Amino acid sequence: MRLYFSPGACSMVVRMVLNHVQEPFEAVPVDLSAGEQRAPGFRAINSKGKVPTLVREDGSVLTELGTILAWVAARHPEHGLLPTDNEARTRVQEAVEYCISTIHALGTTRIFVPSAFGKAEDEEAIKAEGRRIVGEGLRVLEGRMAGDVHLADELSIADFVIYWLALGAVMSGLPLPPRIHHDYTAMQQLDAVRQSLTDEGFV
Amino acid sequence: MRLYFSPGACSMVVRMVLNHVQEPFEAVPVDLSAGEQRAPGFRAINSKGKVPTLVREDGSVLTELGTILAWVAARHPEHGLLPTDNEARTRVQEAVEYCISTIHALGTTRIFVPSAFGKAEDEEAIKAEGRRIVGEGLRVLEGRMAGDVHLADELSIADFVIYWLALGAVMSGLPLPPRIHHDYTAMQQLDAVRQSLTDEGFV
Repeated sequence: MRLYFSPGACSMVVRMVLNHVQEPFEAVPVDLSAGEQRAPGFRAINSKGKVPTLVREDGSVLTELGTILAWVAARHPEHGLLPTDNEARTRVQEAVEYCISTIHALGTTRIFVPSAFGKAEDEEAIKAEGRRIVGEGLRVLEGRMAGDVHLADELSIADFVIYWLALGAVMSGLPLPPRIHHDYTAMQQLDAVRQSLTDEGFV
Repeated sequence: MRLYFSPGACSMVVRMVLNHVQEPFEAVPVDLSAGEQRAPGFRAINSKGKVPTLVREDGSVLTELGTILAWVAARHPEHGLLPTDNEARTRVQEAVEYCISTIHALGTTRIFVPSAFGKAEDEEAIKAEGRRIVGEGLRVLEGRMAGDVHLADELSIADFVIYWLALGAVMSGLPLPPRIHHDYTAMQQLDAVRQSLTDEGFV
């Protein structure tokens, strides 16, 4: 398999989950700051011009963070990253969807790619709105954490997404609510997470 | 069941799918223009302050469009709105996620709620960027439509989401690519879609 990524982008969540289930893959960087994702070469692989982009063993291309994570989880059921019980799975997917379509798309991206949301002169206001959205999102998730550590009873794909959002929050100076902080700290201990941080130049 | 909705918002997709599977429900309007979704009364139901919000028979609250649609589809497997085959289901979920987290969150919302993306003086530029994102999104989907009518071999939850995005595109003067247009026209014939349009005051 081949994962197209950009260091620190949401593609890092796919890397963490692939590392966790010990799925071998080749990681290919895409230089977002140079606009490489919109160049014809990359568009030929993924017409959306986005990472993560996963080329599977049969050569087929899979996109969209939540969909890729669910597919990897289903491929490695022994890790239980996506509950088989319908209600538990629904709750994990609900959290993942909220993380991606609200906190990430509208919040994290405003903080780290403000140019996608307006003019350079409005950059500080855009980043502030991003921090507001991420802060509110983390508080919503905090209210839904089932236990002291993970979102559900056991480690799931949602914890990897929440970890990545929390990492971005910490990097931008936002405090983490207590349960999110607890989960964040627990996730930092995972070999797969530490390896991914190293691989993408964070530590 | 009780569906909190705003006329024409993405909650209409839930209404269409509930109608299609003939699941009885009560529809409760939330006045987004008056900010009712952020009032304490509604926040007590859904702390995210968003529609769609679905209160299920047991009183539990389910949120996030894609998650609600998948849950309704799983509850009514006889309609086959979410394929049981892993690869086919993955492709439907990939399309739904792209529709929600990119085309809807970043495109459609810019067109219909530009105030969420900047100052009043920038409204036209924000709407133009929204139309660009929706237009590009529909072209990406067009390239992935499996056949002449629906996204997959059979009607799925993805077609309802695509129909709703196409409706917003048409309302904002955007042309539909041929296959999307074909799907859009086919969806308009469904009783569940026509009934939903009537219920939300569109026809």
